[in-house]
Amino acid sequence: MIIVVKNSCDEKQYNNLVEWIKGLGLEIHESRGTHSTVLGLVGDTSKVDIDLISSLDVIEQVQRVQEPYKNANRKFHPEDTIIEVGGHKIGGDNFTVIAGPCSVESESQIIEVAKAVKQAGATLLRGGAFKPRTSPYAFQGLKDTGIELLLKAKKETGLPIVTELTSINHLDLFKDVDIIQVGARNMQNFELLKEVGKTGKPILLKRGLANTLQELLMSAEYIMAEGNCQVILCERGIRTFETMTRNTLDLSAVPVLKDKTHLPIIIDPSHSTGVAKLVSPMSLASVGAGADGLIIEVHNDPQHALCDGAQSLNPEQFATLMGKIQTILPIVGKLYN
Amino acid sequence: MIIVVKNSCDEKQYNNLVEWIKGLGLEIHESRGTHSTVLGLVGDTSKVDIDLISSLDVIEQVQRVQEPYKNANRKFHPEDTIIEVGGHKIGGDNFTVIAGPCSVESESQIIEVAKAVKQAGATLLRGGAFKPRTSPYAFQGLKDTGIELLLKAKKETGLPIVTELTSINHLDLFKDVDIIQVGARNMQNFELLKEVGKTGKPILLKRGLANTLQELLMSAEYIMAEGNCQVILCERGIRTFETMTRNTLDLSAVPVLKDKTHLPIIIDPSHSTGVAKLVSPMSLASVGAGADGLIIEVHNDPQHALCDGAQSLNPEQFATLMGKIQTILPIVGKLYN
Amino acid sequence: MIIVVKNSCDEKQYNNLVEWIKGLGLEIHESRGTHSTVLGLVGDTSKVDIDLISSLDVIEQVQRVQEPYKNANRKFHPEDTIIEVGGHKIGGDNFTVIAGPCSVESESQIIEVAKAVKQAGATLLRGGAFKPRTSPYAFQGLKDTGIELLLKAKKETGLPIVTELTSINHLDLFKDVDIIQVGARNMQNFELLKEVGKTGKPILLKRGLANTLQELLMSAEYIMAEGNCQVILCERGIRTFETMTRNTLDLSAVPVLKDKTHLPIIIDPSHSTGVAKLVSPMSLASVGAGADGLIIEVHNDPQHALCDGAQSLNPEQFATLMGKIQTILPIVGKLYN
Amino acid sequence: MIIVVKNSCDEKQYNNLVEWIKGLGLEIHESRGTHSTVLGLVGDTSKVDIDLISSLDVIEQVQRVQEPYKNANRKFHPEDTIIEVGGHKIGGDNFTVIAGPCSVESESQIIEVAKAVKQAGATLLRGGAFKPRTSPYAFQGLKDTGIELLLKAKKETGLPIVTELTSINHLDLFKDVDIIQVGARNMQNFELLKEVGKTGKPILLKRGLANTLQELLMSAEYIMAEGNCQVILCERGIRTFETMTRNTLDLSAVPVLKDKTHLPIIIDPSHSTGVAKLVSPMSLASVGAGADGLIIEVHNDPQHALCDGAQSLNPEQFATLMGKIQTILPIVGKLYN
Repeated sequence: MIIVVKNSCDEKQYNNLVEWIKGLGLEIHESRGTHSTVLGLVGDTSKVDIDLISSLDVIEQVQRVQEPYKNANRKFHPEDTIIEVGGHKIGGDNFTVIAGPCSVESESQIIEVAKAVKQAGATLLRGGAFKPRTSPYAFQGLKDTGIELLLKAKKETGLPIVTELTSINHLDLFKDVDIIQVGARNMQNFELLKEVGKTGKPILLKRGLANTLQELLMSAEYIMAEGNCQVILCERGIRTFETMTRNTLDLSAVPVLKDKTHLPIIIDPSHSTGVAKLVSPMSLASVGAGADGLIIEVHNDPQHALCDGAQSLNPEQFATLMGKIQTILPIVGKLYN
Repeated sequence: MIIVVKNSCDEKQYNNLVEWIKGLGLEIHESRGTHSTVLGLVGDTSKVDIDLISSLDVIEQVQRVQEPYKNANRKFHPEDTIIEVGGHKIGGDNFTVIAGPCSVESESQIIEVAKAVKQAGATLLRGGAFKPRTSPYAFQGLKDTGIELLLKAKKETGLPIVTELTSINHLDLFKDVDIIQVGARNMQNFELLKEVGKTGKPILLKRGLANTLQELLMSAEYIMAEGNCQVILCERGIRTFETMTRNTLDLSAVPVLKDKTHLPIIIDPSHSTGVAKLVSPMSLASVGAGADGLIIEVHNDPQHALCDGAQSLNPEQFATLMGKIQTILPIVGKLYN
Repeated sequence: MIIVVKNSCDEKQYNNLVEWIKGLGLEIHESRGTHSTVLGLVGDTSKVDIDLISSLDVIEQVQRVQEPYKNANRKFHPEDTIIEVGGHKIGGDNFTVIAGPCSVESESQIIEVAKAVKQAGATLLRGGAFKPRTSPYAFQGLKDTGIELLLKAKKETGLPIVTELTSINHLDLFKDVDIIQVGARNMQNFELLKEVGKTGKPILLKRGLANTLQELLMSAEYIMAEGNCQVILCERGIRTFETMTRNTLDLSAVPVLKDKTHLPIIIDPSHSTGVAKLVSPMSLASVGAGADGLIIEVHNDPQHALCDGAQSLNPEQFATLMGKIQTILPIVGKLYN
Repeated sequence: MIIVVKNSCDEKQYNNLVEWIKGLGLEIHESRGTHSTVLGLVGDTSKVDIDLISSLDVIEQVQRVQEPYKNANRKFHPEDTIIEVGGHKIGGDNFTVIAGPCSVESESQIIEVAKAVKQAGATLLRGGAFKPRTSPYAFQGLKDTGIELLLKAKKETGLPIVTELTSINHLDLFKDVDIIQVGARNMQNFELLKEVGKTGKPILLKRGLANTLQELLMSAEYIMAEGNCQVILCERGIRTFETMTRNTLDLSAVPVLKDKTHLPIIIDPSHSTGVAKLVSPMSLASVGAGADGLIIEVHNDPQHALCDGAQSLNPEQFATLMGKIQTILPIVGKLYN
């Protein structure tokens, strides 16, 4: 970490600062210039609060040289993390497709969709049981029943299941869930992150609507700091001024994250765009960008089930898309798993 | 709600749509044009999911005419909500200043600051016991001890206390807290909102970094739907591309919210800007904009306590600011309470 | 266009509004409800200023049903526009790669790069002669000499050239330029748009950093309203809160624009990301998303020419990328042209 | 400027970099660490392109210590710039209100408004003659006639006039205009900035919708580099995700800019919010924030002139606002001029 101190800083303030830094167990390299003094901090700077230092009156600027995340950092773990779920591998050269309905609605619905996505080649089943909704008056999911139905669909098809946890009080219900999803709105619900860190289960961590990639990695770090290194990152669109799509899918996140971390990165083209007809092009774009997988909404009857159909593919559209994906994968050096 | 249906919509799809709408208990006014058909929906449209309808293939556009919030809506509750805490009134013509340190650090610190802010005229004491931090390696607050120290400061000075809740599992510790704060990162932690709704205590609800004002009102609605109408809204800066301030304080939110809702609106100039020297001008700007109050960070020794001092005023600066605020208040039709 | 009028609107205001609308040559369908009155406007609403109406006191909301652009609108021109430049086709099923250095630096540089990109399969040569720079102290390009050097490279290799116009006073120098580029910062320099509209030359119109897709189409409309329909749209990244990339490449723009307009859409992966190692993955992602082409920075010696090298590929990297692009194209139904 | 070089940088690359920096006339202080080498650059670094260096492979990070603007920099010009226009002072302890209609519509309109705003205490008259409009089909202003009418209003009332220039080809028409406005969309039209720099007239430079404060200062620097130091900065709202206001007024810009530059800063509450009823609260907020003035839209008959009225005050509302402004000014240490 580099700290640029203004020359308006007086002796006492300067000594205070230096002592405080040393109190954090860090060494200081000092270099005095005409207009400012540059301090190079050597040691474990991950505990230093950059926002706070940078806003002190006597500080011109602060810059981190080392990233504030350790467990998620590719520098210290150059090999790709590969997570195994029900015999499938996520990460590395593997490409994974998770598919299923936005919400679990009924036994017949979830089983029918599960069979359809399995047939088309999906390797995991998704489905919402606890649904975080902007409005308290909107449908909040089938809750515990939803999870039971997902488990039935798993039994029927053999597909491992992924579903979202919205409260630490529901954790008991998730003991047979294969991958626990932490949604975008809870990406910085740090108490929830700590708890899922303790489960030891693979966690699908979605990027928050207004969170930087560094904050996403710091949230992964919360989970990993509890000893759970099975974290799958998921880009699902960020909030910008553009209104023609629900959110703006930030696909550059894929190569950037690949450079910074060893964790797998998957893309959610359904929620990011909010429109079914954008799902296929953005899925192929994700493959091109080097993503490790996709999480796609598929519904058995989008026309009928009005409330879910908007951003969902039907099984035929999904099967066509799967065909295209599998043709492109070898060109970008990936295997379908 | 108005739904514009494309003329490419076939008979069957159209009938499906109409039946689905009627199934929600709504009446439909239909008006057919050359390129599209306009449906006016009459009834309680707050349960209708606008995102989902708008992304159906046969839909050109959807527009809400009625707001999706009821309890928070000024149309149905034209009178300002006034919340009483320890004999002080928040909302209406009253102006409130909540002040105190970012984190509770020690008994002497919190009591010293409490006395100083009381003397300068603050009517409530703030202080963080549970601190949500981006990094798992950063100081997370004194937790239960922090709340005990706040209660000691309350006993000493008579100032009611405001402190942040980060997990529903900590609720028991908050039974003597006067106002429970829900932080920006938890604005859409809906399970937390429901629980604080059940407490019946005044809730200080901070706007999320990337949340629209409508989403803020929907989150207030979550609390109010549980029967708790004592919600204080707080603007604390939104995330934009500008980097010279930590966040961009959206002061226009004040007159906009005043128009849409009867709930009190206060401003946090400390977190939004992240720099102590911006706190005074932005506090006076908040008064000009018509805010119902301020929540300001004050520290007894910002120079020494490096980690807190960055965005905090010292007691002298705070007292000077309080003087200016009180001179402007009558010009904008407010009373200091 | 639909206008929702509040019932607080009095007789006189209402009549004013209705007369004003009729004065614009529009017909009105009126539908009175309990809380508001809905006016459906029929006719050419492209002249109606939606911002202005929507902010009138008596107006609840306004919504456009028809898009405000005509010439660029796919509804009125369902066939893809195909633009021919030097025997190459841009748009439709064709895929085009424009390559070359950020700035023209010298005769040997531009000719060497032109030969290299031609050999790797690029069909057009790009190179900056007039450079818009944030700082007045930065290198502003070789100007007229730069254009002469581009024309020499064209003569040598047969590649048509693309270069940016920054002032209408330079138009004379562009008479032999094949495609005139309008840069992101000038996307709403309407006087410049009108002038390039009069040239009849193909125009490469870059999206502004903070401009919506609808504004991009409106700027295309400025050019087309002058009788010039040869407009190529270019997505080059938008400004968001994320700082790990220079801008956020909005790839969803491709399928969205394909739906709204018949104009070709190309992607600039070099400026949007600002980092050479992101160019290849984002180029392949662009192909997956269905783009009509790419504009890529290539430099003969990025290591040496420090000032240009940052976001440029070298000829070998570019040739490798071209190979991958050409393998994916048939899968997405495109021909390399 | 500080450059952090990765230790993966080889001897040859490192020497290249060092030579290139020295070639820019800069001295280098080198400090080698375990993971990286820090280079401190001493000298005039304003010509160094930070984006380009920072994206080189061997570079970990780059940070400017000195700002890249000189003429606009308060460090080198600690005294506030005060600009005199028709006997009125802008900047320093003075507070200025510029008022008038969005567009000049007719002789009677502009003269009537000019008289009304003068009576209420405005010191300058604004009015649009050349109107930059998103749509080519929207009213583009009365152009040269508009300027003639403004000059008549000036003759009648003695108020100096402010109007927007949209093309360097119109400069001749602006010779009697007192302050030339450069609009938000042209903030980075660098050719226009250079030309207005040559006029020697006071320039009102509006911040672009997506431009940082540093970019605003760099654009001021373009004008000042031509020898014209009479630049008035204007914040008029930035583009964010919030849709309840047309743009988000960034009032923190006022104290931030006051710290960075000696140039006057005024606020446009009309365009930023787009709604008349937000103009008064945001004007008072601007006074509180320490702004040097306001530019406010006032129309003689907003109800009638539908197209202009949306964000305009009528003369009575404006007069009431002026009264409140003048009561607050002494509290924030300003004089009405």
